[in-house]
Amino acid sequence: MTLATKSVQNNHQSPLEVLSNLLADDMKAVNACIMDKMHSDVALIPQLASYLISAGGKRLRPLLTIASAKMCGYKGDRAHNLAACVEFIHTATLLHDDVVDDSNIRRGNQSANAVFGNEAAVLVGDFLFSRAFQLMVEDGSLPVLRILSGASAIIAEGEVMQLSSAHNMDTGFDTYLQVITSKTAALFAAACETGAVIADQDEQRCQALHDYGLNLGIAFQIADDVLDYTASQDKLGKSLGDDLRDGKITLPIIYALENATDDERAFWYSIFVNKKIDDETLPRAIKICEAHNSFKKSLETANLYKEKAISSLSLFDDNEIKSIFVDLCDYVIARSS
Amino acid sequence: MTLATKSVQNNHQSPLEVLSNLLADDMKAVNACIMDKMHSDVALIPQLASYLISAGGKRLRPLLTIASAKMCGYKGDRAHNLAACVEFIHTATLLHDDVVDDSNIRRGNQSANAVFGNEAAVLVGDFLFSRAFQLMVEDGSLPVLRILSGASAIIAEGEVMQLSSAHNMDTGFDTYLQVITSKTAALFAAACETGAVIADQDEQRCQALHDYGLNLGIAFQIADDVLDYTASQDKLGKSLGDDLRDGKITLPIIYALENATDDERAFWYSIFVNKKIDDETLPRAIKICEAHNSFKKSLETANLYKEKAISSLSLFDDNEIKSIFVDLCDYVIARSS
Repeated sequence: MTLATKSVQNNHQSPLEVLSNLLADDMKAVNACIMDKMHSDVALIPQLASYLISAGGKRLRPLLTIASAKMCGYKGDRAHNLAACVEFIHTATLLHDDVVDDSNIRRGNQSANAVFGNEAAVLVGDFLFSRAFQLMVEDGSLPVLRILSGASAIIAEGEVMQLSSAHNMDTGFDTYLQVITSKTAALFAAACETGAVIADQDEQRCQALHDYGLNLGIAFQIADDVLDYTASQDKLGKSLGDDLRDGKITLPIIYALENATDDERAFWYSIFVNKKIDDETLPRAIKICEAHNSFKKSLETANLYKEKAISSLSLFDDNEIKSIFVDLCDYVIARSS
Repeated sequence: MTLATKSVQNNHQSPLEVLSNLLADDMKAVNACIMDKMHSDVALIPQLASYLISAGGKRLRPLLTIASAKMCGYKGDRAHNLAACVEFIHTATLLHDDVVDDSNIRRGNQSANAVFGNEAAVLVGDFLFSRAFQLMVEDGSLPVLRILSGASAIIAEGEVMQLSSAHNMDTGFDTYLQVITSKTAALFAAACETGAVIADQDEQRCQALHDYGLNLGIAFQIADDVLDYTASQDKLGKSLGDDLRDGKITLPIIYALENATDDERAFWYSIFVNKKIDDETLPRAIKICEAHNSFKKSLETANLYKEKAISSLSLFDDNEIKSIFVDLCDYVIARSS
């Protein structure tokens, strides 16, 4: 274990906080770029965008871009604009997600669509998405444009796939994996790969950082899907049991269904197919998942992706950021246990 | 007047049909590209996208790209991909528009959101938008990327501005012009300019085609806003009086408000601010607009932009496409008279 990771434990800081502190100057520049580029003379745009962007986001994805570039020895400032662009794509996705899911809470506050209306959330999402592309074009690297426009298309595909497979009890692990890889992990992968590309790394190292991001993203989303059942409302920053209400068959449910009794299967059917949900539903769902070790098994699966993420880093020499990247894998899973 | 425009009148073809026929081979290639690139393994994506794209769109914007390139002597096939990209941006905008406006009819059919749900319409819109960017990146021209990503951001700004100014009786001509320039004309301008850029035209000629598209687009949207009151339902392909229901203060209303009596002002106030609409509202609104010559005055204003569009073409030598471009300006206005 390196000094850096020791200091994490000493200061009771999460690896995410350690990374934020280490890259504080860069993140200040990223934030300045975000604030600058979300400006528009149409007042509702910066109002709505800053409502979400300023409200307690962890900036995990732009941090990944900056950190990846740094780990590869990059010294310039292109990473700032591109990290902002990654955050814009993420924010646009969140805005549209909340409209699609009809969510009312995000990051512990009322969601943007709840405050400003679905119409504004859709359109400001479109604006941020376009602005992200303008930022990439300003940067001028076609390989980066290819990575980030590709990731954007994959995210949208993943979201549609999620919508198509909701309320479908036949959803198995493969479909689930494809959904979370597309809707979540693809942007983690693109964020990391972008850092490697601007640092002029060879194909193998760009791919390695892509793979790190991808597997970290998968572990992150599995943990998120467990948290949707196990977190305390305060900690989650959104409504507990949202996935159940939206009919999303996530990994804990897939595991619970594998060995379900007839009674349990009828219970899941009534939720996911007949959409019957009352105050008793969530506690009973949690109880059944616990009886089947579904949460534990989900986190074990997340751990497999954590291991893949870590092994992708083997190409890189040991250094402070690599060590934090390793810790980050544990952290995204540990949030939920 | 050239032979081409004479033949328009002889065959009772609109200039749009003449252009489509003249560029039929190219448009076949554009359509093939559209069909190919809207494919996704996620079945709902091509289902929903083709529902809208195949259903009777006029392909005006991609035609402008192909025709502009041709008028500038371009002989290659880059225009096909880029014209498809312009159509994808337009389709994504339509999908999101219909969600925002809660529209049920588009191009004479049920709108995509009415058939597939708002959620799917938002997400497939995002996919088409991302796919458009992938197509541009594939083309690899940074100037084209700059033009089309810029137009996309301006479109989103225009849509938000329209949303912000809805139900606001103080909306004047300047705001209206800014809204329609952004939400509609910017893509017409970008479609034309892209054709000039890939044909390696100098800055002045690129700007001239940009200006042609922009002014054509403004004339087009003013005529569209008149049609929303004056068209027969069949011809319109969407619901008559939609703008009234959505609280959009368009040019006929702005002119009707200029010399409104107290009674009339109270009537408009009850519609736009108090949102009181019944079966009598639309006929009375039309009657008042007619009494104030609002439709006629709107079309006169559209004619001013038509003149600007035509004068932008003065840089170019006379040829068949230029002549159709001139006729097109009349056509987009004449649709509504």
